[in-house]
Amino acid sequence: MDRVKEISKFLVIPRDIVILSHRNPDGDAIGSSTALKLFLEKSGHTARIIFPSDFPDIYSFLPKTDDIIIYDFEKEKVEKIIDKTEVIFFLDFSGLDRIDKIGEFVLSSNALKIHIDHHIDPEPIADHVLWDTKASSTSELVFDFINLLNGAKDIDEEVAIALMTGIITDTGSFKYSTTSKTFLTASKLMEYNIDLNALQNKIYNSLTEKQLRLIGHALDNRMEIIPEYHAGLIYLTKQDYKDFDIQRGDTEGLVNYLLMIKNVKIAALITEQPTIIKISLRSKGDISVQEIARKNFNGGGHKNAAGGHVYAKLESVLKRFKSILPSLY
Amino acid sequence: MDRVKEISKFLVIPRDIVILSHRNPDGDAIGSSTALKLFLEKSGHTARIIFPSDFPDIYSFLPKTDDIIIYDFEKEKVEKIIDKTEVIFFLDFSGLDRIDKIGEFVLSSNALKIHIDHHIDPEPIADHVLWDTKASSTSELVFDFINLLNGAKDIDEEVAIALMTGIITDTGSFKYSTTSKTFLTASKLMEYNIDLNALQNKIYNSLTEKQLRLIGHALDNRMEIIPEYHAGLIYLTKQDYKDFDIQRGDTEGLVNYLLMIKNVKIAALITEQPTIIKISLRSKGDISVQEIARKNFNGGGHKNAAGGHVYAKLESVLKRFKSILPSLY
Repeated sequence: MDRVKEISKFLVIPRDIVILSHRNPDGDAIGSSTALKLFLEKSGHTARIIFPSDFPDIYSFLPKTDDIIIYDFEKEKVEKIIDKTEVIFFLDFSGLDRIDKIGEFVLSSNALKIHIDHHIDPEPIADHVLWDTKASSTSELVFDFINLLNGAKDIDEEVAIALMTGIITDTGSFKYSTTSKTFLTASKLMEYNIDLNALQNKIYNSLTEKQLRLIGHALDNRMEIIPEYHAGLIYLTKQDYKDFDIQRGDTEGLVNYLLMIKNVKIAALITEQPTIIKISLRSKGDISVQEIARKNFNGGGHKNAAGGHVYAKLESVLKRFKSILPSLY
Repeated sequence: MDRVKEISKFLVIPRDIVILSHRNPDGDAIGSSTALKLFLEKSGHTARIIFPSDFPDIYSFLPKTDDIIIYDFEKEKVEKIIDKTEVIFFLDFSGLDRIDKIGEFVLSSNALKIHIDHHIDPEPIADHVLWDTKASSTSELVFDFINLLNGAKDIDEEVAIALMTGIITDTGSFKYSTTSKTFLTASKLMEYNIDLNALQNKIYNSLTEKQLRLIGHALDNRMEIIPEYHAGLIYLTKQDYKDFDIQRGDTEGLVNYLLMIKNVKIAALITEQPTIIKISLRSKGDISVQEIARKNFNGGGHKNAAGGHVYAKLESVLKRFKSILPSLY
């Protein structure tokens, strides 16, 4: 972090602060934002969290989530708040396109801007930047930021739980993106008396019966394994959406079940939406699903996790996915 | 650990050493045993691992697993080895009944005995004891043991991977039984350049297609949720065993899927074996399935994970399980 002293000096008097994170906020966006808000409020500041769109219900156990302002629901309020704020934190996103229209107001704001993130290719949108693509999560970096400001004394159980939530969700419970430093951070957070078992239950054991039955249906009736190309796919029809009353978030993580098979290296979840076919892709190791999503499905993402969509019939998208496989080997 | 100096002195000259762990060895038994063997061999000793019964195939990626001696397969060899060994390590079990008949030879052996474990109620069977019921795993304690002997310099990537395997498998990837010290140990192990992502894939993404289809079938066709008692059950019939060619280990972890439902606090997997009905029980929080298994199913275990068996018909065991539920609330 450049010029920590400058930030410290600026925060000596109580400030009016905005914490912004990305559309479709995940556990890390919510965890890092609520932790930072708690920390800043302890130091006497006023801090507001703003997300472009609503967040999943399972994270409402985190402190201060009742106070989160959603741009989709309160457009004018958000404009006014950003207009008069003195400091804006950008958390867990690399470019302004990830915060939709809020990006426009931000550009015209004179507030001090501090950017904390771990994604690739940061846009130069802030006065101060704490960036580390090797970090597991933005939450790991917010912990560093608090320590840089010499604020470890202001970390308590609530702050620690919020940061741990971000680390756990962005690493799939320490399964990927986890370094020696990530574990060290988790070790330090545990010293604030986190009940880890209870926290993990809140994050991972919060399905509804319907969601678990959907997993069963998908694996039992909608799964196809193509062993010769180390590939697997799950598809869901419009009728499945009706039968299981599938809502946003209900299919989250479904594609990952395919990767549980030892020899599966590329996996697809293909779902029939009202007007489009959506495709989620995952891979193990060297296969870049980002490239596949970009070339074939009007999409993009990361090397091992990407997605896209097509205007076509379900059948033809299933065929298209299968037709790509031979070229991968 | 009492008398570390005494052990160090004893190990100054090359010794003939046996490492013993329990029947049905799990990731921690195998991880801690192979790590200790690697470490002892680096220090010039001869070390042999002996298990009462065979270990699951998925752990054969660990070094030295080809050399493991299984008592079930080589009874006489094991008797001879124990007869002439100078040191015996007991790893990952609390009493001699966990190593079956091997316990008898051990009792008559004059070898120096060192006991490293984290289960409750240790039997006094060794000369030296490193015991901590708060430890995540025996692997965490073997790491401590190596450090107590000042052997950190002899830890390498292979040793670190074996120990990390034990920690990961005994904590469900840092989901339970994990303390600040566990994370600190993991942080130190990562410094030996473990490819954590690859390791996690070997441990958790090593199912066969058949095993994943069985999960789908169980959740889709064999699952019953009893919301009023926060309970769930999965049963498997003899016909399921035939249809899915279910082998030992194939139903491992199935019962845990039920706990993924937010409101499920007690879960049972009830399976129809050739002559008995087996029942595996899991719980969240305060419900003690150990007590339920002991009182109703000729079994036992831990508070949140237990099991038993009954000579009865599948239908009647399902009924018996359901009849217990009202008394829990």
